[in-house]
Amino acid sequence: MMLAAVALVATTALASVVHAQVPSDPLTQQVRAWRIANAQPILEEFAGLLAMPNQASDSVNIRRNAEQIRALYEKRGVKTQLLESPGSPPVVFGERKSPGATRTILIYVHYDGQPVRPSEWTMKAYEPQVLAGRLEDKAEKKSLAEAAKPENELWRLYARSASDDKAPVVALAAALDALAANKTKIPANLKFFFEGEEEAGSPHLKEMLTRHKALLSSDLILFFDGPRHQSGVRQVVYGVRGSFDVEIAVFGPVRPLHSGHYGNWAPNPAVRLMHFLGSLRDDDGKILIPGYYDDVRGITPAERASLATIPSADAKLREELLLASSEANNASLSERIMLPALNLRGIVAGGVGSGATNAVPSIARASIDFRLVPNQTPERVRELFEKQAIAQGWTIVHDSAEATPEVRRSKAKVMWLRWLDGYAAQRTPLDHPLGRDVLRIVERTGGERVATVPTLGGSAPLVIFEQVLGAPIINVPIANYDNSQHAPNENIRLKEFWEGIEIYAGLMARLGAPVP
Amino acid sequence: MMLAAVALVATTALASVVHAQVPSDPLTQQVRAWRIANAQPILEEFAGLLAMPNQASDSVNIRRNAEQIRALYEKRGVKTQLLESPGSPPVVFGERKSPGATRTILIYVHYDGQPVRPSEWTMKAYEPQVLAGRLEDKAEKKSLAEAAKPENELWRLYARSASDDKAPVVALAAALDALAANKTKIPANLKFFFEGEEEAGSPHLKEMLTRHKALLSSDLILFFDGPRHQSGVRQVVYGVRGSFDVEIAVFGPVRPLHSGHYGNWAPNPAVRLMHFLGSLRDDDGKILIPGYYDDVRGITPAERASLATIPSADAKLREELLLASSEANNASLSERIMLPALNLRGIVAGGVGSGATNAVPSIARASIDFRLVPNQTPERVRELFEKQAIAQGWTIVHDSAEATPEVRRSKAKVMWLRWLDGYAAQRTPLDHPLGRDVLRIVERTGGERVATVPTLGGSAPLVIFEQVLGAPIINVPIANYDNSQHAPNENIRLKEFWEGIEIYAGLMARLGAPVP
Repeated sequence: MMLAAVALVATTALASVVHAQVPSDPLTQQVRAWRIANAQPILEEFAGLLAMPNQASDSVNIRRNAEQIRALYEKRGVKTQLLESPGSPPVVFGERKSPGATRTILIYVHYDGQPVRPSEWTMKAYEPQVLAGRLEDKAEKKSLAEAAKPENELWRLYARSASDDKAPVVALAAALDALAANKTKIPANLKFFFEGEEEAGSPHLKEMLTRHKALLSSDLILFFDGPRHQSGVRQVVYGVRGSFDVEIAVFGPVRPLHSGHYGNWAPNPAVRLMHFLGSLRDDDGKILIPGYYDDVRGITPAERASLATIPSADAKLREELLLASSEANNASLSERIMLPALNLRGIVAGGVGSGATNAVPSIARASIDFRLVPNQTPERVRELFEKQAIAQGWTIVHDSAEATPEVRRSKAKVMWLRWLDGYAAQRTPLDHPLGRDVLRIVERTGGERVATVPTLGGSAPLVIFEQVLGAPIINVPIANYDNSQHAPNENIRLKEFWEGIEIYAGLMARLGAPVP
Repeated sequence: MMLAAVALVATTALASVVHAQVPSDPLTQQVRAWRIANAQPILEEFAGLLAMPNQASDSVNIRRNAEQIRALYEKRGVKTQLLESPGSPPVVFGERKSPGATRTILIYVHYDGQPVRPSEWTMKAYEPQVLAGRLEDKAEKKSLAEAAKPENELWRLYARSASDDKAPVVALAAALDALAANKTKIPANLKFFFEGEEEAGSPHLKEMLTRHKALLSSDLILFFDGPRHQSGVRQVVYGVRGSFDVEIAVFGPVRPLHSGHYGNWAPNPAVRLMHFLGSLRDDDGKILIPGYYDDVRGITPAERASLATIPSADAKLREELLLASSEANNASLSERIMLPALNLRGIVAGGVGSGATNAVPSIARASIDFRLVPNQTPERVRELFEKQAIAQGWTIVHDSAEATPEVRRSKAKVMWLRWLDGYAAQRTPLDHPLGRDVLRIVERTGGERVATVPTLGGSAPLVIFEQVLGAPIINVPIANYDNSQHAPNENIRLKEFWEGIEIYAGLMARLGAPVP
């Protein structure tokens, strides 16, 4: 009940922030006319793709997604192939050559999604559902056909990966159609790289890129992932934070013990884990691990100047998210994401509410995700984290076989760790000429201001592209910011999806030729 | 895998500790012969009762249990009735008068059980299953008929409440049968009080006792709950710890947020909860809430003398529970349970392992159970706990309606608390004459030493009996200590169950007459 009361509260809708404007750009006018005329088949193609479960570890379904994407692009004249690595979902690679092209653009999108905890979703995660607005506002269910009408652009499509990151898969295909329908020339060679394990930490990416380095060579990598800025404005993004995850388990008595007969005698693993986790960061997000900020390079003057171009959404966000105004902390969201983050994404021990029993739990588990900024490395993060644990008397084991009864009997505090694959942050210099071209093109597709953003708060393995392929990388995210990506009830608002088609069409039609 | 490796390890079995001995006591010899001859129908009656789900909140099934118990005792000539209170499981009250009796003994047992989390059980909690030993030792499944053979007394019966607390319900009935078969006179009037909401904190108990005070009047209350001492010896127990639970929820953003785009900007409720919980107790069980020990009266000289009669099981327990020898802390288990305990029985936020997503959770929940000793009160525990939270900047709300969006927007740290019904500890003076009678009788039913224990670590609402009915209370627990009560795979070892029948028969046959 407590939760229901909270979930149902109406919060400030994004509706008032952005209004449809007639674009002054003739190309965008053409693309818009085409996508309005073809809205229903585009949405049907989108829903068809969203109906496929796409967790990277689901080896059967993830491959069905890859085959579907391959078919979508073959239909548009893109020559495709699957790039394989043992144990990995395939990469869908596509190529579209332009006669006389002097530039090659590699476009990256990922087609896998975050795991789903079905009990937390209002609808089924893999049964796409249109609502005439936001779920939180009790919007009604609608059909795709109704959603296709231009006046319904503030409606939303709910499904896992609706925003992150299948929207770009479908919007790009639609953009190719729109350009073809208008006989618009594409000046550059295009290459497409659809990854299938981004949400799982991209464990095979480096191997894939290295093996296919020649196939993937390009002058610019366009990265399509993530949401627009929280203020609603379009953004051109020059970097991402790195990402690194760790799973933690600590042990108490071999079986749960009656908390009366054994409480305050038997060690409680949840309490011990809590004390350790509590030593890692403060309530406001500052990381307390000694030396953690030593690797962090500060914000440069150029970055600080670009931060000034970003509208502040902080107050609006706090209002919407039911956060107190005193949460203002010591920096804005734009500045905060320039810093490292340590997020306790999960902790589970024993039970609560109706599942609570008067027992000392036998195990406590936690999961942490780290967001890295230049010049942090996963290796160093791991080293500092484990050093902190060891300094507090923990014995660390890294594999199932090692948390043996012998170890547990001889060491009071045994911590089991599983480090997932991670990667460092990436930043393209803010003054790169191709970056400036991208910014100008995005500005022309809409009448609005475009923010220049040094880094997304989110992560993608761009550093691996940079290291292996050596090309600059620019990210143009299209999704609405309030899309609940990585959470239950993920969605995309149609307006942002439609404008994504226009942005992608503009980029494909203009990059590789001189941009006025 | 990690868990499986741990669960399957063979630990020291209790088997070697206690051996069947021919009792020198003629009465116990008779009872034993009878219960060996009638073992199978006794077990069938037991299994039938265990097959009924018995969580107090399951209002339909809990009443089925009550009716079944009523029928069992009516069959033995006990005159029964259900004592009712609105919203409460019924109390099954029974009375058996003895002509010429000068003493009345009230016997307390509870028939409700702890909640079950089915995924954690190896078998079905309400489908009783005999194993030829311990589950942890991969003991085979067996039939009730085989289990009834006297040579199989080290086998176990697995089901929720097999130990806690349905074993006494059935063993008492069998003891009445054994005495009747042997035409043994019962000198005292007997009253039976079977409670149906002990594991839910006994919210209606005080009202029930007050309303039926005359009906329940007695010279001694015998309390049958809990396990034997961990060393395997029988114990006569003069008290229990009090019990008090609280459910906690703290709030972050109204929906889970992408940990990249919002991590280290949005407050993480799991981190905040962790910092608060971390301030409540240390790793070794010492409670850190200021003033918490002010209400605790120390261990008296008489209590300390009786502690010396209790065999130490600490080293054996640590070995079995995979706890390090360095966990010896600063006191023995016997002494530890004389002190208050604060047990973090559950904490849940976000997800771990395959359920982990890169999100800032929107809510974090925890559940704590407190064990109280004289002279603590639930009221004072609550006051000190909330004072600690307020001192750390938390705004406390106590009901669903109060965690409103307005409160959350105006206060950075909002903590929702639900205090469950609780009660204080109870201790009967160690020199009470009827307590000494109980001790002598229990000693006569076996050839073994009996420990005099000032208090169980566990709890039962004995203080309410003491306050309302004014009679002394003595507890004679019968279950094996390693019965996993309050945990998955609860069980009773048959040897302890059989001996329970002998102990109960001895007590009913001798209490109320002079005990030599």
